[in-house]
Formats: sequence, structure tokens, C-alpha cells
Amino acid sequence: MFNISINTKMKNYLFSIYLLFSVPSALIAQQDSIMLDKIYEESLYRGEAYTNLHYLTKKIGHRIAGSAQAEEAVNWSKGLMEKLPFDRVYLQEVTVPYWDRGEKEVAKIVGSNESLAVLALGGSVATPKDGITAEVLEIENLSDLEKHGENVAGKIVFVNKPWDESIVETGVAYGLNSSQRSRGPSQAAKFGAVAYFFRSLSSSPDDAYPHTGGTGYTKGIDSIPAAAISAVSATKLSTTLKANPKLKVYFKQNSAWKGLVETHNVIAEWKGTDKPTDIITIGGHIDSWDVGEGAHDNGTGTMGTLDAMRTLMVLGYKPKHSIRLVFYMNEENGVQGAIKYGEEASQKKEHIVAAIESDAGGFAPRGFDIKASKEKVSWIQNNWKPLFEQKFWVSRFLEGSPGVDSGVWGRQFPNTIMFNFRPDPHRYFDLHHTEKDVFEAVDRRELQSGVAAIASLLYLLDQHMEEIQ
Amino acid sequence: MFNISINTKMKNYLFSIYLLFSVPSALIAQQDSIMLDKIYEESLYRGEAYTNLHYLTKKIGHRIAGSAQAEEAVNWSKGLMEKLPFDRVYLQEVTVPYWDRGEKEVAKIVGSNESLAVLALGGSVATPKDGITAEVLEIENLSDLEKHGENVAGKIVFVNKPWDESIVETGVAYGLNSSQRSRGPSQAAKFGAVAYFFRSLSSSPDDAYPHTGGTGYTKGIDSIPAAAISAVSATKLSTTLKANPKLKVYFKQNSAWKGLVETHNVIAEWKGTDKPTDIITIGGHIDSWDVGEGAHDNGTGTMGTLDAMRTLMVLGYKPKHSIRLVFYMNEENGVQGAIKYGEEASQKKEHIVAAIESDAGGFAPRGFDIKASKEKVSWIQNNWKPLFEQKFWVSRFLEGSPGVDSGVWGRQFPNTIMFNFRPDPHRYFDLHHTEKDVFEAVDRRELQSGVAAIASLLYLLDQHMEEIQ
Repeated sequence: MFNISINTKMKNYLFSIYLLFSVPSALIAQQDSIMLDKIYEESLYRGEAYTNLHYLTKKIGHRIAGSAQAEEAVNWSKGLMEKLPFDRVYLQEVTVPYWDRGEKEVAKIVGSNESLAVLALGGSVATPKDGITAEVLEIENLSDLEKHGENVAGKIVFVNKPWDESIVETGVAYGLNSSQRSRGPSQAAKFGAVAYFFRSLSSSPDDAYPHTGGTGYTKGIDSIPAAAISAVSATKLSTTLKANPKLKVYFKQNSAWKGLVETHNVIAEWKGTDKPTDIITIGGHIDSWDVGEGAHDNGTGTMGTLDAMRTLMVLGYKPKHSIRLVFYMNEENGVQGAIKYGEEASQKKEHIVAAIESDAGGFAPRGFDIKASKEKVSWIQNNWKPLFEQKFWVSRFLEGSPGVDSGVWGRQFPNTIMFNFRPDPHRYFDLHHTEKDVFEAVDRRELQSGVAAIASLLYLLDQHMEEIQ
Repeated sequence: MFNISINTKMKNYLFSIYLLFSVPSALIAQQDSIMLDKIYEESLYRGEAYTNLHYLTKKIGHRIAGSAQAEEAVNWSKGLMEKLPFDRVYLQEVTVPYWDRGEKEVAKIVGSNESLAVLALGGSVATPKDGITAEVLEIENLSDLEKHGENVAGKIVFVNKPWDESIVETGVAYGLNSSQRSRGPSQAAKFGAVAYFFRSLSSSPDDAYPHTGGTGYTKGIDSIPAAAISAVSATKLSTTLKANPKLKVYFKQNSAWKGLVETHNVIAEWKGTDKPTDIITIGGHIDSWDVGEGAHDNGTGTMGTLDAMRTLMVLGYKPKHSIRLVFYMNEENGVQGAIKYGEEASQKKEHIVAAIESDAGGFAPRGFDIKASKEKVSWIQNNWKPLFEQKFWVSRFLEGSPGVDSGVWGRQFPNTIMFNFRPDPHRYFDLHHTEKDVFEAVDRRELQSGVAAIASLLYLLDQHMEEIQ
């Protein structure tokens, strides 16, 4: 019936699923449970997210928006979608600012052989060509700048706020420190700092790798070069500063914005049978930072949501609502893909009833954060959680925030129910935005178990969207 | 107050905890929540399970019961316990049969260069000194032996039942196949087989490592040599057999039982203030298989339960009930440690009110299986799950089986409430009983998060044991 290979075992399923969709409503819960079994069986045995992720990470590699690799990922993804029985696969034009890291950054304590592991923050300007040599002012919070006043001028401001290791939900710990990354350089420059070092947002104090991430500059204030420094190097620098507060650090990087680049979101549509103009959007961002391989952030999210749709297709499912897969460009440094998606959908007055985003890694699936009224969240907990909890170890269905991309375009769609896929949070911020975020850090069973959870949610949403209340 | 180092931050806690235990009962739930915060903070910042695990795995290594390493682990563990303010630390004598693998096993397809990755099953006899060369009969289930009848004689029986990859709870998939490991050699020998190959109990079909595990022989039937064959080698052998059913395999191993050895359980007791004769037993097995480093099985269980107790101690907690930490010897091939523990406790008519066991790895904690009445499980779900679920991502409190050791001694204590710690199940059976079960496969945050979950449960049990109904 459609253009994908189906083995014999699957043919038997197709028949049983045909039966499944023709039985009376009293058996719906049992039908759902049987369908979830099929989904898990398909994903765990024959899932393709892991092998696709291998190609994305090893053949294409990291892919910052605007780079040649990002566009290669766009075209290759489009090709993957075209092999599946979508009704339409297309690119949506997105203009992104392209930032290039340039040569490897250099930082060292002057007069010693101590190298500091640093990585330019995304969006940072370069140092002067010959680098900067300056004293260092260590603070824990940006708010400490005030009290140092004139003492800041001419120095490298070094924000060394430790990660709160006690928080199991590592995303919360990330949130506690991340605003100092985005706002730090301009705050420090206001006081005359010449550069900005930011202790990496890593969940491990023993982490030798710097974690990059976006920063920005406030108009009217000098843009100063900014870099993340690894937890280990931050501790080393802090210790050395205690012994010698007048030490100087040499710092050089030549990152720069390189102008605007035309690139794309990748979109595939699977038309609904009953309500074709009611759209469920699913996806994640296809770009990554320019280090590592963008495996957990966000190769798993894109390859996972694509494989969730493949899973339903190969099971012979026909959606009631239209399901639209979106690979957003530029989540990491500008969110231009999500902005464009929202603008177009809004102009067309589209009816996006629900959204699922995956952008928190490919670890063992734990559940979904839900942006909806308390009543709706409660309905989902009562009706859907029992289908997942005991058998599939997915039990977290809590009110929460949408993913970054859905959150951005969702400003124009305030009534859309949004689901943010939540894999286990323990390991994510050891890898996030670093050289360590590679294919080898992804476990196949964990990834495909997550794909099954996402496909199951998508199925339930499509079947029961109108019942949620 | 006691013999462990306490930093300044902890001193502040001790005072707040002193206050905590002197407030009226209306605030109990809030007290519990605050105590759990302290426990997680201590474990995630200053937990010692991970560093102790490093010593156990790297300095002592694997430690099959009866080996010198197992006894080294016993004595080293006793030393660890003696550094903490237990009231009593002692060894309990256990006699175990010692099985030795001998030289590296050899298996190859005769006339080819194809080596097969095999590992003697624990308890297996040796092949004749010069090995066995025989044809191979591949079956999927032991029950297939009957229909092959006389055709079995003189052959190597090769049970190639694939792992059910669709089951998220991998322990269930393990259970579906494991009886063929324990009963297989004698069943095959009854039909005249000369050796037994068993497809490894691995959750990955791409696994190149064989997984060992215990087997046994039925009295009155010849004991034939038995080995696990890796999933990859099993598939290779199966494919080659299809092309050439008459192929012969050469197989040699010289494993053997080496008689009885006197060894020990390691036990530490922390006396209760209110009900010193009511005992909560906590622990896991200290032995491992003789490959890899016994990291997830069960270095994490022993070092984790010890660290859970250290956590409560360092927080200044004083238990109401006596808490007894037990490191059981010989869980892997004989369960003699648990048998001895049960016998002695039973002879002394001890009152063991509850038990916690950790023997399912050191992955992200998901919850506890509970052996208790439905009513009690339900009470625990209602009262304790909310303390863990949202903040600490621990949400699985289901009726279930105890761990192997508690299950064994628990036959004499049918009324003891038993908790079986459940970490995430996705990765365990990729590593279990193989060369891959090493320290590097353990993540510090996941392990210490599990320690905190166990310490929290232990605290709640001690505080509210008598309220469970």
C-alpha cells in the first residue's frame, strides 16, 4: 500500500490492526493498549532512529545553523522523509545569522604552563588579533559586579557560579545559571571589562570539557569576547587566583558573525482522514552547536520524532488529524526556524491543535511535560498514564513548559496543547553543547524506547484529541 | 559526636535537623520532605558510593564466591563499615562451593577460521582435556529436544532462543529465557548431548560478548560442559549451520568445582533508639561473576546501600529501629550467604520488620518493587510516592518480588515487608555477567541519585514503619 518495506510479521499486525479499528468503542482502552504494544514492538525491534542518528552524527556531524553541514542535514533529512508515505515533504525558507568559531580558542595563565579549556560562547566576538592579556576578576554572580565598581575596568570578568548538584532535574539547575551566560558579557562590559569567562553549565564538577551556548550583547554597550571555561579549568583558575590575585590570563579567539544565510526548516505532512485541517505538529531542531556531533542535542530529537511517525506508518495507521513533522533550524542561536514556522502558520490561520517536541536528549523516556490547563493535564494523567506506567516505565505526565521551538511559535497559538518529551535528566548536562555529545553517548534501547513513547503519545493524541477536557 | 568528618555546611544542617525532630506531628510530611532534600543534597554532593565503587572494581576487581578477591572484598568492606559509627561490625561465616573457570574457553567452527565467543556457564564441568569436536543441533527451546529424539546423541545442543526485545522491563525478558540456562545441560544430556551452548541472555542482538550465569546438573544424569555463546556468535553459528548442517564445532574449557571454601557475609548494625529489637535489613551481594568488574552487578548495590546508611549518619539521624546492613556472599552461584543469614536470624527468632535490597544495577533510580499486601503497597503509594515523584523523578512503587537474597532468607520471614530497588532497566542486560560490567559503565549522578532514593526510603521506613497498613 505504501512505499516502505513491511516484513511478514508486520503483515499479520496490519490485519489485526485493521480489525482493531473496526470494533466498538467499549473496547477503546484495550485497543489503545494493544496499539501501544505494537508500537513498542516495532520501535524496539526495527526502529531506525539509531541507525539514522549514526549517519547524521558520523557522516554529517555537528551542524550549526548557516553552515554547510546544517544544509546537508536539511537535504538529507528531506530525503529520509521522502522515503516514507508522507503526503507532502518540503523545505521552508529560513534566514539565519551565521556565526563561526574560527580557530581553536587559546587561554592560559601567563607565566605558567597552565592552559585553560575554553570555548567561545555562541555569538561572541573575537579578541583583538593578538589576544588579550589581563588580570581576572572572579565573581559568583553578575550582581556582584556592582560592588566591585571601578575595579572591573580592564579585567577579564570570570563568573564562577557552581552548578547546583543537589537538583535531580538538571534542567532546573541549568536554568539557575544560564541567564548569566546570555546577559553576562554586556553586564561586565558596562563596568569596563575586556573579556568574559563563564563557568561551564556542566552537572559535573570534574568536567574537563567546556560547554558552549548562546550569548548576546546589549545595544549601546561594547561587545566583549566571551567564552565558557570548563569546570575543571574554572576551579584551577579560581584556586590559582586565591594564591595570586594579580595573575594575568592570555586569551585569544577569533569567532565572528559572518552575515545572513538562507537555510531551511524541513517539513513533512501526513494528511488526516477526519479532520485534515486540524494539525498536530511534532519535531525538534535539526541544527546543533559546532562541537561534538549534536547527538543528544538534538540528533535524537529529530531522528526520534521521524521514527515515531515511521512507526505509525509501518503499522498501517491512518491519522484522523493531519500530522506535521517539523525539523526546526537555528534553535541554538536565534530560533529563526521556529519564528518562521509560527509566522507562516499564523498568516495562514492554521488550526494547530497539539504539538510534541523532543529536545532533551535520547535517554530513557520518563514522560512528557504538558502545557495545558490543569484539568486537561489531569485528564491525561487519568486516561493515558496508566497505559504507559507499569509496562513501559513512562510515568511523568506533569504540567510544564513546552520545548524552546514550540514555545516560540506557540506564542501565536496560545490554545495549542503542547507536550515536551522528557527523557531521564541525569546525564544530559554532562554532554550538552560539548565535544562529548557524540553518537557513542546514545544507547539504542533507550533511544528506541523513547521513540515508542513519542509514537504512542502521538497515536493517543490523534485518537482522543477531542476527548481531552 | 561520631567518627566521620562533617563540614561546616553539614553542621548547619545538623542543627536544623535537631530542630526538625522536635516539632509536632502535624508537620511530619513537611519534615519528611525537608529530610529528603538533605539526603539528596548530601548524596549528590558528597556521596561516596562512586569512589568506593572505583576501589572495589579497579583495585579488587571481579570476585566470585570462594576466590581470594571475594575475601579481599569482604575484609575491605568490613573496614569501610568500621569507619562509620555502626554499633557493631562483624563477619558471618558462610561455606561456599568454589567454582573456577580455568583457562580461557575455546570454540571454533572446524575447518574455518571462525572463532565463537563463549564463556563457561557458572558451575559447568570441563570438556575432556583435548576438547570436544562434534556436530551441532540448534534448537530454540529445550522442549524441542523431544522431537529430535535420537538425533541429539553425540551432538552439541545449541539453544538459540532470541531475547524478546519488545519488553521494556528487561528483567522479564531475562526471566523468559533464563530457565533454559539453568536446566539446559541436564535436559540435553538426557538425550545424549555431549555439550551445551546457550545463546547469551543479552538485550542486544549485536552483542559480541558472551554473558555467563549459573547452571546446574540433575543427579543421575551425566554432567556435560556448558557455555554461553555471544549473541553475535550465536547468529553466526546459526547462519553457518543453515548452509552446512553437518559442520562440526571444536569446544574446549576446563572449568571445575574446586571444593568448599570458608568465606563470609559482612554485617554492620546500627542500633535503634525506640525499637532496638525490630530490625530493618538493607544490603546486596558482595560477590560477582568472574568476568568484568562486577560494577553494576553488584558493586553499585553494596556500595550504594552502605552509602545510604552513611548519608543518614552524617546527617545526624538516629534510627528508631535497628538497621542492619548485610553484604551477602555467593548470590551468583549458590545463595549460601542468604541461606546462612536466614538460618541464623530464624534460630535467634529475630524480628525483621522490613528489608531493602539493591541488586539491579546503578542506573537512574525509578522506584521500588514491594513485597507486601495490596493495602500496604497502596498506603505506600499514597503516602510516600508524592515525596519522590515530581522532585526526584522516582515514581515506581509497585507490588513485586523481593531481590534474590531477601527472597531466599525471606522464606523464613513471610511477614517482612520487602523493597527491591529498581533502577532504570534499559541498559542492565547489555552488561550483566560480562566483561563489559566495569566501573566506566556507571554514571556518578545516576548512582548517587539511587543512593539518595534508598536512603530516603530507609528513613521513611524507620520513621513510619508502624503506620503502614
